Amino acid sequence: MNRYGYSVAIVGASGEVGKSMVETLERYPIPVTSLKLLASSRSAGKSMVFKGQPLIIEELTENSFDGIDLAFFSAGGSVSEKFAPIAVSKGAVVIDNTSAFRMHQDIPLVVPEVNADVLTHEMKLIANPNCSTIQLVVALKPLMDVYGIESVNVATYQAISGAGAKALYEYNQELEQDDYVPQILPTRSDKVHYQMAHNVIPQIDVFMENGYTKEEIKMINETRKILSDSSLKVNATCARVPVRYGHSVCATVKLKGPVQNRQEIMDLFKNSSDVVLYDEIESQKYPMAYYLAHHDDVYVGRIRKDLFEDDVIHLWIVADNILKGAALNSVQIAYYMHRHGLLGD
Amino acid sequence: MNRYGYSVAIVGASGEVGKSMVETLERYPIPVTSLKLLASSRSAGKSMVFKGQPLIIEELTENSFDGIDLAFFSAGGSVSEKFAPIAVSKGAVVIDNTSAFRMHQDIPLVVPEVNADVLTHEMKLIANPNCSTIQLVVALKPLMDVYGIESVNVATYQAISGAGAKALYEYNQELEQDDYVPQILPTRSDKVHYQMAHNVIPQIDVFMENGYTKEEIKMINETRKILSDSSLKVNATCARVPVRYGHSVCATVKLKGPVQNRQEIMDLFKNSSDVVLYDEIESQKYPMAYYLAHHDDVYVGRIRKDLFEDDVIHLWIVADNILKGAALNSVQIAYYMHRHGLLGD
Repeated sequence: MNRYGYSVAIVGASGEVGKSMVETLERYPIPVTSLKLLASSRSAGKSMVFKGQPLIIEELTENSFDGIDLAFFSAGGSVSEKFAPIAVSKGAVVIDNTSAFRMHQDIPLVVPEVNADVLTHEMKLIANPNCSTIQLVVALKPLMDVYGIESVNVATYQAISGAGAKALYEYNQELEQDDYVPQILPTRSDKVHYQMAHNVIPQIDVFMENGYTKEEIKMINETRKILSDSSLKVNATCARVPVRYGHSVCATVKLKGPVQNRQEIMDLFKNSSDVVLYDEIESQKYPMAYYLAHHDDVYVGRIRKDLFEDDVIHLWIVADNILKGAALNSVQIAYYMHRHGLLGD
Repeated sequence: MNRYGYSVAIVGASGEVGKSMVETLERYPIPVTSLKLLASSRSAGKSMVFKGQPLIIEELTENSFDGIDLAFFSAGGSVSEKFAPIAVSKGAVVIDNTSAFRMHQDIPLVVPEVNADVLTHEMKLIANPNCSTIQLVVALKPLMDVYGIESVNVATYQAISGAGAKALYEYNQELEQDDYVPQILPTRSDKVHYQMAHNVIPQIDVFMENGYTKEEIKMINETRKILSDSSLKVNATCARVPVRYGHSVCATVKLKGPVQNRQEIMDLFKNSSDVVLYDEIESQKYPMAYYLAHHDDVYVGRIRKDLFEDDVIHLWIVADNILKGAALNSVQIAYYMHRHGLLGD
């Protein structure tokens, strides 16, 4: 940091998350003296606006990080694997939104409300978790603090924007044209593609041999790492639904102690500053992706005590997958580090 | 039954399920000598086609059931409460697709593949279960038979047609018009209505005081009744997704014994005649609502052994909610009774 603020770079600036990072940086109180937008040669030359000023996207190269204090990466795992260490070697702090480094033992995986305390001044590469994982752990944290958590089982209802701008375009085409042939979803890199409109696709990312998808394994491993509990049992089934922005997560949580009634859990969330309680059965108030898209917070509702087990509760958690699930969380990590003097020399 | 076949009535013939009952009766080997279509005065006078013959819908009255051997009801709980006993008193066997009688102790709740053995010649009123429940119990039955089941936890992804033809119309309008004001979903009888397009609505039917919806309570109670196990623990979170036909159910099943590996469960379903196994990770084969709509069977895939518990498995179950979830199952109950001489005098 120079005396005025940070030289910031965004890698993958033209993508869904990159664009949102630019917008989030505009409104977040992090002092930015310069912003460099980086992307592949395909997007280089395009222009974007930051705080009223037009900026031209530059092609990412090994020399892109000279003089950069802070770099956000969201251009795919292989780009991060190659260029994040280069950025760090040039003196930048890197906040990486890909899965490249998330499970590395020495690299912190951070959701500021949950585990910002793992951050130190020595850390130069910080991983931003998977989108669904972020909203899950934000909702689990108050429960963990008060009751302890034995196990978590989730089913997700994930938005299309999580698969990128091309997937959103594909969904819009499917709604317009009956004979559109899917080419992106469920996973661009996989062999077979399916229609998303009027459908639910129970595949996000590619399959592992044990029948789980990589997205499910990410949620399981990342949740355990962030909550820092090696005895915590987590399971996930991840599905994509015809929603543009906003992931919904249905979570069943087995606590380490009994719950009296649903009001007890409602009060816990009502008193938490990190979660917005959206649960009024009289007025049919519960979190919904369509209405909460483009909102910053993590919303929790449909709170129920299990009918058979005193220590089990059920929740419905909604957050914007591009904001809290990606760009906003990355900026919040940077903001936390800035406030605590963990950025710069 | 006269010497040629049955005089059949369909109450609620103009609805989504009623229409499907007419189509299903056309292709099912139940001898039908006459078909009477009944509905409210609003639909009376409209015409439908059965086996190439036009039939006029008549208004439902107390005299509608004279000479009727077999009556299918699908016109709402209050209609069944009033008219099903009248039909029975006139000598008809009633198969009721509403929730009116499902939990009555003396009334069988039947999915033929699962518990047809409860049917006897003395039974004149048989209840057809809730749509999501049917596909769940069909998938659970082979597991119950081989392992026994300790508990089941489901999250549903339910199609719009389950809320009726008006809800489908509303969804189509929302896709066409940005300023369309929702009036039906999530539940016509409830106060507040929400947009379904590009959304997930975690409310089906109205709320109970404990935070559960009636749909969730139905799934819980009906699953326990059909599987006839009072120690079985069931939980459900029911959500509506932007899909026209086909419910998806994500189920976590705790068995009464350990599972070696996922292949063991795949083999069990492969050898079951009541479930279609759709699970090939190499070719991305798994059940999807859009592609399996208008199919008769219950499809199971995404089979996984839990990563932490040896006796827990996860499944993804898809079936057409109007067919196996309603009309087809009702006709299959009748067909079973016909084959086993349980219909008529």
